[in-house]
Amino acid sequence: MLTMQDALLALNAYWSQQGCLVAQPMNSEVGAGTLNPATFLRVQGPEPWRVAYVEPSVRPDDSRYGENPNRLQTHTQFQVILKPEPGNAQELYLGSLKALGIDIDAHDVRFVEDNWASPALGAWGLGWEVWLDGLEITQFTYFQQAGGITLDPVSVEITYGLERILMALQGVSHFKDIAYAPGVTYGEVFGQAEYEMSRYYLDDADVDTNRELFEAYAKEARRLLDLRLPVPAYSYVLKCSHTFNVLDARGAISTTERARSFARMRGLAHDVAALWAERRAELKHPLGTATDPAGPDGAAGGLTGAPGVAGEPGAGAAAARPRPRTLAFEIGFEELPPAEATRVVEAVREALESGLGASRLGHGALNVLATPRRVVATLEGVEAHEPDHEQTVRGPRVSAAYDADGKPTQALLGFARSQDADPAELGRGEFGGREHVVLTRRVSGRPAEEVLAQLLPTVVSGLRAEKNMRWNASGLSYSRPIRWILALLGDEVVPFSVSGLDAGRSTRVHRTAPQPVIDVAMADGYVELLARHGIIADTGARRSAIESAAVRLAAQVGGLVDLEANRALVDEIANLVEYPTAILGTFDQKYLELPDQILTTVMRKHQRYLPVLDQSGALLPYFLTVANGACDQDVVRRGNEAVLRARYEDAAFFWRADLETPLESMQERLELLTFEDKLGSMADRAQRIADTATEFASLLPMGARDLITLEKAAGLVKFDLGSQMVTELSSLAGVMAEVYAKQAGRPEEVAQALFEGELPRHSADKLPESTPGALLALADRADLLAGLLPLGGAPTGGSDPFGLRRAALGMVNILRAHPALAPLTVSTMLRIAAERQPLDVTDASLEEAQQFVVRRFEQQLLEAGHSVHDVRAVLAQADRPVPAAGRLTELEAAHGTQELAVATAAIQRVLRIVPDGTAATPDPQLFSVPAETNLHQAIEATRAALGSQPDLASFLKESGPLVQAIDAFFEGVMVMDEDPTVRANRLALLASVLRLTTPLLDWAELK
Amino acid sequence: MLTMQDALLALNAYWSQQGCLVAQPMNSEVGAGTLNPATFLRVQGPEPWRVAYVEPSVRPDDSRYGENPNRLQTHTQFQVILKPEPGNAQELYLGSLKALGIDIDAHDVRFVEDNWASPALGAWGLGWEVWLDGLEITQFTYFQQAGGITLDPVSVEITYGLERILMALQGVSHFKDIAYAPGVTYGEVFGQAEYEMSRYYLDDADVDTNRELFEAYAKEARRLLDLRLPVPAYSYVLKCSHTFNVLDARGAISTTERARSFARMRGLAHDVAALWAERRAELKHPLGTATDPAGPDGAAGGLTGAPGVAGEPGAGAAAARPRPRTLAFEIGFEELPPAEATRVVEAVREALESGLGASRLGHGALNVLATPRRVVATLEGVEAHEPDHEQTVRGPRVSAAYDADGKPTQALLGFARSQDADPAELGRGEFGGREHVVLTRRVSGRPAEEVLAQLLPTVVSGLRAEKNMRWNASGLSYSRPIRWILALLGDEVVPFSVSGLDAGRSTRVHRTAPQPVIDVAMADGYVELLARHGIIADTGARRSAIESAAVRLAAQVGGLVDLEANRALVDEIANLVEYPTAILGTFDQKYLELPDQILTTVMRKHQRYLPVLDQSGALLPYFLTVANGACDQDVVRRGNEAVLRARYEDAAFFWRADLETPLESMQERLELLTFEDKLGSMADRAQRIADTATEFASLLPMGARDLITLEKAAGLVKFDLGSQMVTELSSLAGVMAEVYAKQAGRPEEVAQALFEGELPRHSADKLPESTPGALLALADRADLLAGLLPLGGAPTGGSDPFGLRRAALGMVNILRAHPALAPLTVSTMLRIAAERQPLDVTDASLEEAQQFVVRRFEQQLLEAGHSVHDVRAVLAQADRPVPAAGRLTELEAAHGTQELAVATAAIQRVLRIVPDGTAATPDPQLFSVPAETNLHQAIEATRAALGSQPDLASFLKESGPLVQAIDAFFEGVMVMDEDPTVRANRLALLASVLRLTTPLLDWAELK
Repeated sequence: MLTMQDALLALNAYWSQQGCLVAQPMNSEVGAGTLNPATFLRVQGPEPWRVAYVEPSVRPDDSRYGENPNRLQTHTQFQVILKPEPGNAQELYLGSLKALGIDIDAHDVRFVEDNWASPALGAWGLGWEVWLDGLEITQFTYFQQAGGITLDPVSVEITYGLERILMALQGVSHFKDIAYAPGVTYGEVFGQAEYEMSRYYLDDADVDTNRELFEAYAKEARRLLDLRLPVPAYSYVLKCSHTFNVLDARGAISTTERARSFARMRGLAHDVAALWAERRAELKHPLGTATDPAGPDGAAGGLTGAPGVAGEPGAGAAAARPRPRTLAFEIGFEELPPAEATRVVEAVREALESGLGASRLGHGALNVLATPRRVVATLEGVEAHEPDHEQTVRGPRVSAAYDADGKPTQALLGFARSQDADPAELGRGEFGGREHVVLTRRVSGRPAEEVLAQLLPTVVSGLRAEKNMRWNASGLSYSRPIRWILALLGDEVVPFSVSGLDAGRSTRVHRTAPQPVIDVAMADGYVELLARHGIIADTGARRSAIESAAVRLAAQVGGLVDLEANRALVDEIANLVEYPTAILGTFDQKYLELPDQILTTVMRKHQRYLPVLDQSGALLPYFLTVANGACDQDVVRRGNEAVLRARYEDAAFFWRADLETPLESMQERLELLTFEDKLGSMADRAQRIADTATEFASLLPMGARDLITLEKAAGLVKFDLGSQMVTELSSLAGVMAEVYAKQAGRPEEVAQALFEGELPRHSADKLPESTPGALLALADRADLLAGLLPLGGAPTGGSDPFGLRRAALGMVNILRAHPALAPLTVSTMLRIAAERQPLDVTDASLEEAQQFVVRRFEQQLLEAGHSVHDVRAVLAQADRPVPAAGRLTELEAAHGTQELAVATAAIQRVLRIVPDGTAATPDPQLFSVPAETNLHQAIEATRAALGSQPDLASFLKESGPLVQAIDAFFEGVMVMDEDPTVRANRLALLASVLRLTTPLLDWAELK
Repeated sequence: MLTMQDALLALNAYWSQQGCLVAQPMNSEVGAGTLNPATFLRVQGPEPWRVAYVEPSVRPDDSRYGENPNRLQTHTQFQVILKPEPGNAQELYLGSLKALGIDIDAHDVRFVEDNWASPALGAWGLGWEVWLDGLEITQFTYFQQAGGITLDPVSVEITYGLERILMALQGVSHFKDIAYAPGVTYGEVFGQAEYEMSRYYLDDADVDTNRELFEAYAKEARRLLDLRLPVPAYSYVLKCSHTFNVLDARGAISTTERARSFARMRGLAHDVAALWAERRAELKHPLGTATDPAGPDGAAGGLTGAPGVAGEPGAGAAAARPRPRTLAFEIGFEELPPAEATRVVEAVREALESGLGASRLGHGALNVLATPRRVVATLEGVEAHEPDHEQTVRGPRVSAAYDADGKPTQALLGFARSQDADPAELGRGEFGGREHVVLTRRVSGRPAEEVLAQLLPTVVSGLRAEKNMRWNASGLSYSRPIRWILALLGDEVVPFSVSGLDAGRSTRVHRTAPQPVIDVAMADGYVELLARHGIIADTGARRSAIESAAVRLAAQVGGLVDLEANRALVDEIANLVEYPTAILGTFDQKYLELPDQILTTVMRKHQRYLPVLDQSGALLPYFLTVANGACDQDVVRRGNEAVLRARYEDAAFFWRADLETPLESMQERLELLTFEDKLGSMADRAQRIADTATEFASLLPMGARDLITLEKAAGLVKFDLGSQMVTELSSLAGVMAEVYAKQAGRPEEVAQALFEGELPRHSADKLPESTPGALLALADRADLLAGLLPLGGAPTGGSDPFGLRRAALGMVNILRAHPALAPLTVSTMLRIAAERQPLDVTDASLEEAQQFVVRRFEQQLLEAGHSVHDVRAVLAQADRPVPAAGRLTELEAAHGTQELAVATAAIQRVLRIVPDGTAATPDPQLFSVPAETNLHQAIEATRAALGSQPDLASFLKESGPLVQAIDAFFEGVMVMDEDPTVRANRLALLASVLRLTTPLLDWAELK
């Protein structure tokens, strides 16, 4: 049996063989291996660096007195840094698993998207969690920034979680049972320290002392930065960080303290990193400067080995052939995030279509498919050449081309020379009504190879994802590293290279295949060739395979899978594997006592498992997982079952602990949760939501029962954020509020309102049904918008850190779903919420916030397919989304009617002549022609007929006389009379038309 | 080439194979691997523990900006703990050197006495430095106490110094040049950190901040102790310790702070250790309880292998033989300290002689020899049996044994029964003038085996050293572990066992021998057998071998070795090896620019090398080292040369640095050196010495030149303690004062006085020659005694932490060597010194201090062979040692003379009758008989003849009439007259005899 210390020794030995320096753990408490200066400092600057080390990582917040089977205040990381990235880090990593004795052929090892970021360190990177049979065992990251500084070259960071790996390999379910060394368990060695340090971190650390320590450390760090000593300065930054964590675990970090401390640490970390880089430069980079091994010759030296040739043999030496051929074009990646695997298909299709469209190359059908590791485009019937065509070049005007004697001028001769043409070849042609000399010649079409060799590289270099990274000096930037390009036209390579990466005939199949890199003979049948190597290139096919296997396996235990409800999850899973292997696993019946939402959240969200239901829709103790490619299904099943068991054990622990905690105690914990520096704690926010919702209610006619429900629910709003379950599984916020409120004997409606107050949680989510729920949800969103928008929290580009877009849209949707809430306008709600913010919200801010909501509403309407003109015409009323939407419906219904057409024409004529701001107060005494009087009377009559809240249909029905009066007015009256008094009175008369009609629509927007 | 990281990986792997748990370095700065809780806490209590780990050890004081080739603020220790001690830890350790690729056959690996203690931790142990060709590479300790708590079982602690080992193995002379990993040097990896952390520790650490941190840590540690959480408490003790070290390196620790801080840390460490032990007991010792592998079956399982039988074959099965045989008795040790190897010879000889003397066993010559690893006793001509003899048992008195009828009484019958004798066998004998019944019977002598089997174990268990330790549960206690006992009588084993250790016929030869354990066939020729295995048992023979080789090798380079001056060193070397192999090494000529004292101190004291001189006595650039047994002399030479080079490089660094430092700056550094908590800094002490010496001078007739010299020297006294050289090589105190004072251009006499002020430094040292030097030396010692004795600094048992015995004796010796200083009495000097102490010295304390000096003087005189009676007779005058010694000489000269005999008799008669405190004021008016008047006149006449400062010889010459008058008085006068007035007057008359004679001698003490 591999003991924990064997594992550490094996990893040290393995990575040492890979050229890593073996460093020691930091001699100061750190929360992760990343914090060790061997990572944090060394990833800066151009010096190459390869290091591996063990790092006991201290996380005071994870203290559990040694009781929780999976959580420790100190866990053991093994950390590797490869700088620059070697081009085959994933393969090196898989080698390390083999060095641990893990049979990677039998297990399901997967690279699952995970984008790592540490705001406290100003650090981020893109990469994966590595899953072993569903268990996250490693974090694998292409490090992009540290200390807020962009890293060049990029380092690969590999962080193993040793306890998890050992628990899995040894098949034990509590960390204390890990065999640490022969005859000694982890618990025997570290049990007492776990207990005592947990006591310290959770219960006994002296808060004042630690606060003093934090100050002293921060001060010392700053002083040392001023002295230009980054190394000791950094040691104090680490001490700061640990002390902060201690205070945090003690629940002693106040709202403002947290934000301030984070900013301070981030600032110090940045300055340390910058100073370190500066000092290294001054020292002339003692370790040299990284030469990028992923340059023109590629880094895959260790990979290529002796590639075989697979597929049908090629047809020998290629000669120019007139027959159309097939293009196979593949871009190979390290595992793409599922969303990017979807996006890349469209991106490549569009790039190819537009590129081909701009050429003259004849071709057949284009098919683009993708897996996490590749996008494959096949293009049938590619002609050998573009067709030849005539090209006409314009020369000088004829009048300038020949002199009076009809002889060629210098202008003409110059043109002919420049075109390498005989003047005799020139003809004439007309351009813009003038006659020019022209040269017409036949141009040969380019060979297909040439067209493609120009087009394909632009497809590769043009790839962009939601979030992009660099990985080496190639200049490419994409979601994950691009590692190979296959481009075959028939049996020949299309010769090109992109940023040092050559197109070729090699592709990579499963990493565990006997021959992971193969050569491809010809383009035809490439997708089938991949299939023979266990790779289903078509996402749809993978999805179908998953669905049918899921249905079949669930049926074996008398269950079913709700494919409809799990559509997005199946889509994701289909893009997590290249060859889905569905496996049915089971879990202990006893966990079914937990609420379904918990069980399914863990399955779906954390593990990407499909839950299995019985015929009544109740959960069965089974799940479906989908492994990648061939594996030993029993091994993978057992592994996944163990992972789920551990997670459910965790959840059960939280569940029981929470059930023993009064709701009020959970609520008190909100004091400790920061919402936003200037906006106070989560408790402050909850209080504001409660007050805001209550004031909303005061503006409405509400029944006593709803009022009581609202009051009770408001008193508990967001309490579940203080539960252990939601702390761990934050997506269960609201869900647990409902569950726990019911368990605590609160009325159903209160529980429901608490849940509904969180709705909608995402764009496809349901909306509150009850009025109290709707009011809480509106208040929640109003509080967010009124508080954060003035603080600059508005989304920028793709980033919406506070989810304000979603909040605004949620507000609109709730209002639209609850017409009874119509008295609540967006601006009213924002104003009420603003009054409760701990900061001063100006009218301008409030106006901006309201506009922010209106813009979301506009966007929503446009996306629903309404015409931009119609939408804009009603947008002035968007402060009340229900009437606005209703008006839009009326408007759309009126399209095509005579009434709308003439009314629009008339009113737009008025709009064109009346200056903005003209008072609508004509003096009838000044009317001098009947048309004036008639119009005046028509306005008054229409107004009287419509009442105070006119709808569009009624107006149109009544509008005939008014429209006629307007037309008559324009025919019979000279508005711009020389007498200014008369002129002003006539404009005022027209303005009173607008006063009547503008509240209905913004007529100017109509076509 | 073995890189540093290869070495760490190899050690981890090796010790892991030996059953050690591989732990991680402490995640808090520690000064040594011992501080890691995996050592400090785990050695407590009964639980077994085997651990190995790397420990980057931070010693702020060793910061050198990365410039010193051998000194780093962070160096790398590799630490091993074996608990309980396995019985073969040395062999396991040698195995680890092999695992590092060290050819231990070629190198000279030696275990050199080193007794480790850490007062700050309340920890100590006995053991060795391990030398590789003269380079200290490892500390090897049997851990006796930690946290002030005696450890049971004992742990073996092995601490490797990796940088030194790697520098030696890689043959580089600067730590920065060590190949740390393939292609990366130590300097490249750690150079910047060395520089920056040195800057922090030496120059830039904020003192106030660190002081605050110390307080905060200590407070937190104490609080956690109160909460019974030893693990987090200990983490804060470590932080305290590091912070203290930072402050110390910054020179910021004041006198009182240092002592207080140490006491505080020691107290915390003790409480942590005690609490940990308590908590482990409460947890029922999760790792179990150590079963001692060194129990009856011995631990040497891994060692014994297949022992061969060496020496002459035995004579087959033994039958009882009447022929005298030879006894070979050997006790085998792990390397004894040289002093103990000397003492053990006498101890074993005495134990055997007295044991044999108490038996009746006939035997021939006893010869006892010793090496560091064994004491060997051979006893020739051991008779097979004790002779038979008659034994007489006394019964009841005859008068009680028979009744009136002559029949045996019950008393007689009872006696016979108790003796299992027939009453008829009984005879008669006289005891104390009374006749008793007696039983006489013949007792058979015990066989030699029986006698020896009783005697020899007592020899083993009776061994005691200056400093003893335990190593396992056997109950034995000695300087170093006893590992085997050989006891052969002829060819048979003497059957006994001591505390589980069986006597046998195995012995151990060199650990590097092909067969390190051999069986011995017979006792005869055992010493020769050892010689054939390369072990010279006789210290004298080893000494001669060293001396002759030294002379021969030195002559090869035209040099010589001053054997006379190096007698003690040669003695020590002779007891460091079992087979001396002298090797001549050389060093760079350039180091000869350093003062001889530095060069020879390094050679002799630190390396146990013999310096080589030219014919004029000047140093040559050669040295002699003595390796143990066979080795590759070139390898060993190169190794030792490298060590000496490094040490000289260090010394040269200090030398140059000191020469650039004004004497006054060094002197200022004394402020930072604590002398004793209540007695201030070393600067305070230096000032007191200066003042005290000056006041001494005022009591003497002194020349102006001496006075000026004294004043100048007093102003600089002890300044060299502030030099880097003396900080590093403390034995050069005084020597460097002279050298540096001369270099700084101070007068010769001043330099000399500064040197002489430190004399004598040990019992055989020379004494000050100049008066200024003598006064400074006396003032130094008076200050020590007057300050420390009142504080309880007096020596107890073998321990004299402040060297007060040496100080007192030094004082006496200086006074005796300088008769001109006679006006300075001991009590005067102590009083003057006492007046300058920062604390109140009472008269009683002063009296005690004076008596302390007198006792040392008494001891000195007795050790010089003077009779105890004579010494005591003059001791009342010991306050002035010169006259007292003179009186002793007079007294001894007078022994055997009639005058002394009669005077003594007469005076002692007077002493017997005169009560203490009788006034010596007789009233002649009351004399009633002539003998009174005669005596009175004889007293007055003698007094008049002798003058005020009588010597003994004069007195004796003049004493005739007085003695006669005394005798006549006792014959003619009834002292105890009935008239109390007369009686009192006669006693007063006799008292005046005593007043005259007592100042001469304490007559009562004479025989």
